[in-house]
Amino acid sequence: MFISKLGEFGLIERIKRQIKTDSTVIKGSGDDCAVLKYDRDRYLLFTCDMLVEGVDFTRKDNPYLVGRKALAASASDIAACAGLPHYALVSLGIPKHSSVKLLDKVLEGMRDLARQYKINIVGGDLSSARQLVIDVSMLGFVEKKYLALRSGAKRGDIIFVTGTLGGSILGKHLRFIPRIKEARYLVENFKINSMIDISDGLAQDLGHILKESRVGAVIYEGLIPLSKQARNLKDALYTGEDFELLFTLSRKEARVVLERQKTSLFTPVGEIIDGKPKLILVDSKGKESIIQAKGFRHF
Amino acid sequence: MFISKLGEFGLIERIKRQIKTDSTVIKGSGDDCAVLKYDRDRYLLFTCDMLVEGVDFTRKDNPYLVGRKALAASASDIAACAGLPHYALVSLGIPKHSSVKLLDKVLEGMRDLARQYKINIVGGDLSSARQLVIDVSMLGFVEKKYLALRSGAKRGDIIFVTGTLGGSILGKHLRFIPRIKEARYLVENFKINSMIDISDGLAQDLGHILKESRVGAVIYEGLIPLSKQARNLKDALYTGEDFELLFTLSRKEARVVLERQKTSLFTPVGEIIDGKPKLILVDSKGKESIIQAKGFRHF
Repeated sequence: MFISKLGEFGLIERIKRQIKTDSTVIKGSGDDCAVLKYDRDRYLLFTCDMLVEGVDFTRKDNPYLVGRKALAASASDIAACAGLPHYALVSLGIPKHSSVKLLDKVLEGMRDLARQYKINIVGGDLSSARQLVIDVSMLGFVEKKYLALRSGAKRGDIIFVTGTLGGSILGKHLRFIPRIKEARYLVENFKINSMIDISDGLAQDLGHILKESRVGAVIYEGLIPLSKQARNLKDALYTGEDFELLFTLSRKEARVVLERQKTSLFTPVGEIIDGKPKLILVDSKGKESIIQAKGFRHF
Repeated sequence: MFISKLGEFGLIERIKRQIKTDSTVIKGSGDDCAVLKYDRDRYLLFTCDMLVEGVDFTRKDNPYLVGRKALAASASDIAACAGLPHYALVSLGIPKHSSVKLLDKVLEGMRDLARQYKINIVGGDLSSARQLVIDVSMLGFVEKKYLALRSGAKRGDIIFVTGTLGGSILGKHLRFIPRIKEARYLVENFKINSMIDISDGLAQDLGHILKESRVGAVIYEGLIPLSKQARNLKDALYTGEDFELLFTLSRKEARVVLERQKTSLFTPVGEIIDGKPKLILVDSKGKESIIQAKGFRHF
């Protein structure tokens, strides 16, 4: 059997089966970050994100933005757990014929994002490779009381997204802002029941919340905030790289989120329902259909 | 200018220049691990190691051993700082046509090494890639009093290596034992002034100690413990992947190391001298020559 047949999630399940962890691991594989014991008040968050030329970017993309994205993708994972990023290591696989200028641009993009979010780049590894590969591993911290996971969604929760969705591959994926500030605002002011970053499309990432929380969801076509680049609803549901936050909280809290916001940063798109982890889409005529939690997959 | 012209260390220097870190970073880029503030008694160690198909292993190698090596290489970095590994993340770049069986073997090798050293694999990332790429990032702990760096070598120190050197590429590189136990024995019983793991050849890695400690060294051809696979002294000096420890400590301490050992695990190969970071090799006839701190380089 080939990996392409097993699929990305089959592969991940297969890997998870191999894993046993001790009691210092609060949450291992299966969330945006691993959550590890740290001190009395805080957890340590540990995550990595691998970008590969031809998959996550191309040689035609601005290398400054590629470097920036590499660091921002891991920072987005930390944000999804409501943490603050603090340290990063950068492993680079580089084709031998690469120009120093290209590499300088990649590093400059990383450095600027690191400065912006006070991330310490503390080392890394270099290897020659056939295509440019950038793997960033990152450490962050989150107060225990603020930790947000995929697994806490409750019946009646309102489902929100930040920003707009879809068409990211046309440009935003290289310029997105990791939603660190927004995640912190949310956990510091509201009781967030579950959170994830939308990296593989709304349907697939909401599917992760439903699976981990063992609940279902209804989302409304008319509520989903499409980006200017999105051609249609499918772009928002099934294409990746938006790096927006998807979160749920009680109806009562949701009302306050909406009352307090001056812009349309946080948009309610549906609600959590009881039952199996199925996802129901309601179209503009009120017609319901069950949609698959599919989205971008590597295999 | 191309990267191949700048060279690996030119590249690393270029990267280091970009990096600014805050006061919680005890040691950033430039040692086997990043050393980070943790608690009153301990530091957090953070390292990563990228293995690339065609560079660090081939498709003909046993995938079980490839997986094992990927984790062991990072564990060896933790050992070089005298720490104990505790958590790992695994980023995998996988060609789409790979078989599930191959991946299972890679994972099995990782899992077995993780169990042996009580390392928690807490997650990772998957991407499709043209060649198999495995990047392992690892966290470990070390008591402040035991931390060993490249930078502490002192004039008069005796230089030691563990095990035997050279010819690792013929097989040992896939089966090496990360010297965690040996490093712990050393720091718990002796005052180790500097330590590194030999991943790129004795000359190059001793060169790192000399540079970071601002000292010189004399090593004796006749003392260097060649492995059975080494064809000659050059294999031990200039080829990589031995993953043995290289460490220095005072003459007085060195005597006790030798008195106490029942096997020939620790071998003295030379001593640290004052002056510039140059490396002098004394041959069997007593003839001195200055040798270059060269070894395996990716670019």
